[in-house]
Amino acid sequence: MEIKKLLLCEGKTFAWREGDLHTNFGLVKGEDIKQGKVKSNKDKEFIVLEPNFNDLTAFMKRGPQMPLAKDIAIILYYSGIDKDSIVLDAGSGSGLLTCSLARIAKKVISYEVKESNHKLAKKNVEKFGLKNVELKLKDIYQGIDEKDLDVITLDLPEPWQVLEHAKKALKLGGTLVTYLPSIKQVDQLVKEAKQNGFLVSKTLEVLEREWLVKENIIRPSHDMYGHTAFLTFLRKI
Amino acid sequence: MEIKKLLLCEGKTFAWREGDLHTNFGLVKGEDIKQGKVKSNKDKEFIVLEPNFNDLTAFMKRGPQMPLAKDIAIILYYSGIDKDSIVLDAGSGSGLLTCSLARIAKKVISYEVKESNHKLAKKNVEKFGLKNVELKLKDIYQGIDEKDLDVITLDLPEPWQVLEHAKKALKLGGTLVTYLPSIKQVDQLVKEAKQNGFLVSKTLEVLEREWLVKENIIRPSHDMYGHTAFLTFLRKI
Amino acid sequence: MEIKKLLLCEGKTFAWREGDLHTNFGLVKGEDIKQGKVKSNKDKEFIVLEPNFNDLTAFMKRGPQMPLAKDIAIILYYSGIDKDSIVLDAGSGSGLLTCSLARIAKKVISYEVKESNHKLAKKNVEKFGLKNVELKLKDIYQGIDEKDLDVITLDLPEPWQVLEHAKKALKLGGTLVTYLPSIKQVDQLVKEAKQNGFLVSKTLEVLEREWLVKENIIRPSHDMYGHTAFLTFLRKI
Amino acid sequence: MEIKKLLLCEGKTFAWREGDLHTNFGLVKGEDIKQGKVKSNKDKEFIVLEPNFNDLTAFMKRGPQMPLAKDIAIILYYSGIDKDSIVLDAGSGSGLLTCSLARIAKKVISYEVKESNHKLAKKNVEKFGLKNVELKLKDIYQGIDEKDLDVITLDLPEPWQVLEHAKKALKLGGTLVTYLPSIKQVDQLVKEAKQNGFLVSKTLEVLEREWLVKENIIRPSHDMYGHTAFLTFLRKI
Repeated sequence: MEIKKLLLCEGKTFAWREGDLHTNFGLVKGEDIKQGKVKSNKDKEFIVLEPNFNDLTAFMKRGPQMPLAKDIAIILYYSGIDKDSIVLDAGSGSGLLTCSLARIAKKVISYEVKESNHKLAKKNVEKFGLKNVELKLKDIYQGIDEKDLDVITLDLPEPWQVLEHAKKALKLGGTLVTYLPSIKQVDQLVKEAKQNGFLVSKTLEVLEREWLVKENIIRPSHDMYGHTAFLTFLRKI
Repeated sequence: MEIKKLLLCEGKTFAWREGDLHTNFGLVKGEDIKQGKVKSNKDKEFIVLEPNFNDLTAFMKRGPQMPLAKDIAIILYYSGIDKDSIVLDAGSGSGLLTCSLARIAKKVISYEVKESNHKLAKKNVEKFGLKNVELKLKDIYQGIDEKDLDVITLDLPEPWQVLEHAKKALKLGGTLVTYLPSIKQVDQLVKEAKQNGFLVSKTLEVLEREWLVKENIIRPSHDMYGHTAFLTFLRKI
Repeated sequence: MEIKKLLLCEGKTFAWREGDLHTNFGLVKGEDIKQGKVKSNKDKEFIVLEPNFNDLTAFMKRGPQMPLAKDIAIILYYSGIDKDSIVLDAGSGSGLLTCSLARIAKKVISYEVKESNHKLAKKNVEKFGLKNVELKLKDIYQGIDEKDLDVITLDLPEPWQVLEHAKKALKLGGTLVTYLPSIKQVDQLVKEAKQNGFLVSKTLEVLEREWLVKENIIRPSHDMYGHTAFLTFLRKI
Repeated sequence: MEIKKLLLCEGKTFAWREGDLHTNFGLVKGEDIKQGKVKSNKDKEFIVLEPNFNDLTAFMKRGPQMPLAKDIAIILYYSGIDKDSIVLDAGSGSGLLTCSLARIAKKVISYEVKESNHKLAKKNVEKFGLKNVELKLKDIYQGIDEKDLDVITLDLPEPWQVLEHAKKALKLGGTLVTYLPSIKQVDQLVKEAKQNGFLVSKTLEVLEREWLVKENIIRPSHDMYGHTAFLTFLRKI
């Protein structure tokens, strides 16, 4: 069932769907939640928040390691995706990138070879009510059915196995993005991409640092990801 | 006139609209460009690329300092903008953020107080053929006409002057994003946002580092922006 | 008692002083350790390492939060400390910075206001057998006894309370270094330092990122400190 | 001749040795400089600073690319160098690392294969009046004369050519540090170091970011090195 509101209390976030909500800060009445700012029966105050997509991703069913928001943001923008884009995504994994793409693009096709991931992605796509996603239980290393794609995003260990298929499936000028943890993978990808006639646009990494901004203290957060992945952007020419 | 192709040669990029193209690597015939890979009359080989939005931003008419792609990407994704979003943007500046928003959102209204910027933004919006943008020559510190906005993005020096207006103009759960170079500005914004009843979601900074991946050398680029801005996300509750 | 060797096994490090060593990988004989590469009675192989100062700091008695090696390294080098330097350090804390200074400088005097820290620092100084350290149980906010100091290092919350004392205690051109977690503290320090006639040389932060370099994977470590402290360097002029 | 004072005016730094000083802000009398704060004949005020080692490195005779202070600092500290250390350094280059080592260590031997660099390093060592440095015009790839070294620092393109020599020259537990721009070089080094029986301690990179802290603006500097080198620490076991 769809999450309608988020309730915030002492740094913790609770998802509300319907009825009364039981939390470790006490019970909150469904009727009160509909009205706005509320208190629990333990007299704890909650902030009620209308969730946006980004809020809701925190409540997705978790599966294999999910890409971080910072990397998804960069992939979406740098690959030039907009309302008219047709995008292929593989592997689906938990579906986070798939859903993020689908909220911007016209249509997203997502391949996944592992059945459990495929099912998980399906659940998450449904949860967000996205209608422009086609999920296929299919090994992208074996080929791509689609043609004239604007963008292909690959979050899988051997993207060089997809280069030949991608070349046929992408339209001229189309972008192939890879998400790779190891720079050794990037090395191999770039080498093979050049041999396959792709334009190697750029490889980059993104570091995000949160800041604490309080009355008496302003400093970066101690917690920070030292690394997630290298993003490589190739172009069909 | 619209840019139809990009021509790449020895790390330089040339925009082609129509006819023959004169470059410092020689003249390239318009007829050849339409066909794909071409040579100039000096026998220099060019790569022909179908441009995407990101490519084209490099050819926008430049005005005041423009936000970097990395920061725009984060603003777009973290504020949860999608095809249904109505977004207000101020100040327009050169219109880069305005255009980036308009390619994703349903509708973008952009305020700018300086006439030269307003005209520049107009030219750039037209250049991209974006129909869902309304540009207003108007001081946002004086008030906001719109209601029920999903997101407001502020790239101006005193965003705290907009807080009261933004509170009326945003829908419940809507996001206000600020782009501020100095952490002192963030300090003042956060203080006043709390007083105005906003939920202070987070402040962050993003570092992007490009990598050179060649046959014999793999290393980060020496060039890197040490800083652009702190991004702060507020929510109307 | 002094640590004579370190024994490494499966990513874990054990300190050996004398006699047999009991580890969770089995018992290792003292006689074997003296010879070099050894096996435990469970047939586990250990690497035997002659420790240097940096290795040994991992076995110091822990107290209040200790500065990281990266920050100590920068403090030591940027403040121009060498074999002839007389340095004042406050507060002693666990004594890690004190000991690091003492290994380079001619003499280190270290003030600490809290008795438990003072005792802890004393133990650690003794552990390293450093003879050129004088530890004082004394509040540096109340004054400095010494004169003609080359460098003063301050790891305490209100270094601006030390500015006037430092001005008298430092020699001309001498350096005052502060280690401050919050940029708000730096702001106040810089303001007061200018009023006190110090030359504000620079404020910086240092990020260190470790890399995994293995046969099949080369990538940055996921673990990284997003922040420790801002280092500010002032000069007496 | 030795630099005795530095004069600072409007962000520029001038070195004073003796006599009157001619600057683009006017002439400053030698007699005035000896006294402290001075004005030029154009009525410009100068700050007079007693230089420390770090200040003076800015006035070294420049030759091949010099390592940055941040990297030297980390090398010095992490390799555990102190007053008793005997260190070998190659190649000398301009001598900056050699001099930095010599100010801490008991003795530094520095090899350089190129005569122009060797002479340059010699000049810089003399400039700093360092007596504990021995500069050799010698190719370290051909062998190392010394024994029982505490630390070897290598700033040269193929450090794996030095591994066998280093193994004989280092004492047990001694550290070999390499400064390598490309992670491909690190990959090869680590592979061969393991084959040669070294303990691969760690590889890291250090980012330093300066901050502007003024009355009305507090922000990181825009200028920042995106990359200098990867530092790898090996241990003889």
